[in-house]
Amino acid sequence: MTPDTPEISAQKEQLFDRLRGGGSELQPLLEGVHPADLAEWLLDITPDEGWELLQALEGAARAEVLALAEDAVRAPLLERMEPDQLTEVVRELPADDVVDLFALVDDEVTEAVLRSVDLDRAAGLRRLSSYDPESAGGVMNSELVTVSADLRIGDAIKLIKIEGEEAEETRGIFVVDEAGCPIGYLSDRQLITNSIHDEVQDVMSAPVTITSDADQEEAANLVLHYQLEELAVVDASGVLVGAIAADDAHTVWEEEASEDFHKLVGAPADQPTRQPLLRRVWTRLPLQGVTVLGGLLTAWILDRALGEHLDGDADLLRFIPIVIGLAGNVGIQSSTILVRAFATGEVERDRELSVLRAEVAVGLMIGLICGAATTLISTTVEADTMETTFAIAVGAAIAVAVTWAATLGCVVPLVCRRIGIDPAVVAGPFLITVSDISGTVLYLGVAHILLPT
Amino acid sequence: MTPDTPEISAQKEQLFDRLRGGGSELQPLLEGVHPADLAEWLLDITPDEGWELLQALEGAARAEVLALAEDAVRAPLLERMEPDQLTEVVRELPADDVVDLFALVDDEVTEAVLRSVDLDRAAGLRRLSSYDPESAGGVMNSELVTVSADLRIGDAIKLIKIEGEEAEETRGIFVVDEAGCPIGYLSDRQLITNSIHDEVQDVMSAPVTITSDADQEEAANLVLHYQLEELAVVDASGVLVGAIAADDAHTVWEEEASEDFHKLVGAPADQPTRQPLLRRVWTRLPLQGVTVLGGLLTAWILDRALGEHLDGDADLLRFIPIVIGLAGNVGIQSSTILVRAFATGEVERDRELSVLRAEVAVGLMIGLICGAATTLISTTVEADTMETTFAIAVGAAIAVAVTWAATLGCVVPLVCRRIGIDPAVVAGPFLITVSDISGTVLYLGVAHILLPT
Repeated sequence: MTPDTPEISAQKEQLFDRLRGGGSELQPLLEGVHPADLAEWLLDITPDEGWELLQALEGAARAEVLALAEDAVRAPLLERMEPDQLTEVVRELPADDVVDLFALVDDEVTEAVLRSVDLDRAAGLRRLSSYDPESAGGVMNSELVTVSADLRIGDAIKLIKIEGEEAEETRGIFVVDEAGCPIGYLSDRQLITNSIHDEVQDVMSAPVTITSDADQEEAANLVLHYQLEELAVVDASGVLVGAIAADDAHTVWEEEASEDFHKLVGAPADQPTRQPLLRRVWTRLPLQGVTVLGGLLTAWILDRALGEHLDGDADLLRFIPIVIGLAGNVGIQSSTILVRAFATGEVERDRELSVLRAEVAVGLMIGLICGAATTLISTTVEADTMETTFAIAVGAAIAVAVTWAATLGCVVPLVCRRIGIDPAVVAGPFLITVSDISGTVLYLGVAHILLPT
Repeated sequence: MTPDTPEISAQKEQLFDRLRGGGSELQPLLEGVHPADLAEWLLDITPDEGWELLQALEGAARAEVLALAEDAVRAPLLERMEPDQLTEVVRELPADDVVDLFALVDDEVTEAVLRSVDLDRAAGLRRLSSYDPESAGGVMNSELVTVSADLRIGDAIKLIKIEGEEAEETRGIFVVDEAGCPIGYLSDRQLITNSIHDEVQDVMSAPVTITSDADQEEAANLVLHYQLEELAVVDASGVLVGAIAADDAHTVWEEEASEDFHKLVGAPADQPTRQPLLRRVWTRLPLQGVTVLGGLLTAWILDRALGEHLDGDADLLRFIPIVIGLAGNVGIQSSTILVRAFATGEVERDRELSVLRAEVAVGLMIGLICGAATTLISTTVEADTMETTFAIAVGAAIAVAVTWAATLGCVVPLVCRRIGIDPAVVAGPFLITVSDISGTVLYLGVAHILLPT
């Protein structure tokens, strides 16, 4: 997240004003803004404005903004680029970032770009593109400085001075044997603190390795567990093909953790508070569909088991599992998304209201769809015993209860943050219970009002 | 997590055998084992065995194992140490790790140790101890190399060679003005690749700063957002007091993410699969208590609203919100704990069965307690209308449904991992629905069997 300081907010506001005013004279405003901030601000402007912004940046900064931006915003920008503009970007970036960009453009464009960079680099980029993006090979950096064990520290330092430009992402050097297998690692700090006359084998530490086809999460966990500066990535025969640095591991780790959070509640994996409304409804609907079907099955079982005891309004009780299930799901989706977004800084203070409105709208849509589905399915299945007015009342009451749960799931974490209580603690336990009770009461109340007595 | 390789598993097994056989001749087995692995293995042995292991390590390794171990296992080990043994450990570790250890021993011991290290360091450690452990100051490293802007790169490198020992945790140097405020940063790599005749101010980049009282999570997010090697920590007057390196930020971030996961479902925040059984029941019980009370309130409301329609077995329906609520909670607690533990590598294959057994036991205990509470409270509150046999049947049926949900919440992720499906996707959505339906049916079935017809 962009830090919430007055200076940075002022920079952002000024830049946005200028962009909306036609985008002239942007350069002076862009000086001193960090590419990571610009990359994030792209999320809040139109593709056309993003394009203006990109044009106003000089080469290295433009490349870096593209390397850091989310796929959803950089894809349309990359598509608008001429191959030679893209080639310029490619020249500025390390290989692993380039490969990520290639994944977003047409193969012909990639080919055109590869033909205009030098042969060695093109071969390296092709090799790197062939790894599964979720594997260790897919996140590694393949442009390394390697040395043999009997080299002196002073000569290793000279080698970095010469090759350093191509290996700008690394924080040390790997020592390899004749076959190219890693046998040691020296951090830059070790290079600095040891005598230039020492041989690297007297100073190096044992490298930790992983094969290129291993899962990226496993690689990230290794880096964290051993507190590595760089993890060696080797091919099937043990030859060094790349390295995963601590900050790459951190990025992987953050993605995987957020993904797990959102998957657990059946919400969009990536930046869920910034997705278009219908997309959010769509990704969250499968879970609700399963809940409705499961709830209807339960209602049917209850009818078989206890049907003769359930007359009049008491029949409403059969649908409580659907109400509680849906309200619980929607509420915990909203609150998990918010708690996670707070933690990663996705929801700044000025976005709170728009996030709330959007979540309530999503809840309403999900509620209407699920309520309608319940009405339709139950009148069809139990056509002979169920009255249409009753089924409609049940559906409408479900829609109200679900909307209420989404509102609650959003308001509670927001209020908690405002008054300084940890939203994560309140969001789960209390929210579910409060939403269970209030949802049930609301459902019965609404249905009761709608039903003719 | 310790990587799951045959060599490391063999090392671990051999070491454990030797420890259980009395702990003689440990040294040869400990060579080549990484302190991070030893720190983790401490979780699986008794404090006495841990003590033997620690005694067999040489000074630097012992200090590092203690720095990396969980508080729960290192606290009893630190308590057994004599002050001069602890002083040795303190000499080996960077200040931020020392302060974490001090938090676990008596104040008198800390004082004794501080008296035996040199004056400067003692003053630094006292200062560092005064920061809130959850703040940027609490996780920063205070032993830095700083230079003035007009120093030449060559001289900066000499300074690191001299002071490097005390600043072993840093990956670069901060440039400060006369007041001590940070005005620039140079990574070790920049020091290596630039000419030794350049002045640092020609090469340095702008530092990113945070105040020492800021939240550690905010600091970690800044490091991630700007992909920093080190974040400058300043006091209220802007003077540099420490730095947070990328790997420290990563550790903070991992802790906070896992905490959020577990808090969301009301489970223990830290290593939940390794806590003692009763402790787990205890930490997870508050959420269930709220659910039972909320469910009873709902049941009471339903009785007021629809009581006259509910005769015989149909009265069981009033308690479905409790069943679904409890089963859902317990199931999602179990599955979240497992999904998270898979991601961080806390549950290796050889621990699967013991984790399953423990989760089922926890589920059974929670089920029995909540079932009994439901029986007791509802017979008390509705003393005039509810028969005791009915209330007991409800309670027993709740216990069965909850145990079932815990089993399901554990078996499903384990099976998913075995057959190669992402447990996070299945654990949330499907599990809740399956547990809602099967829990309800099981509850009705069990209650029906127990009730006299």
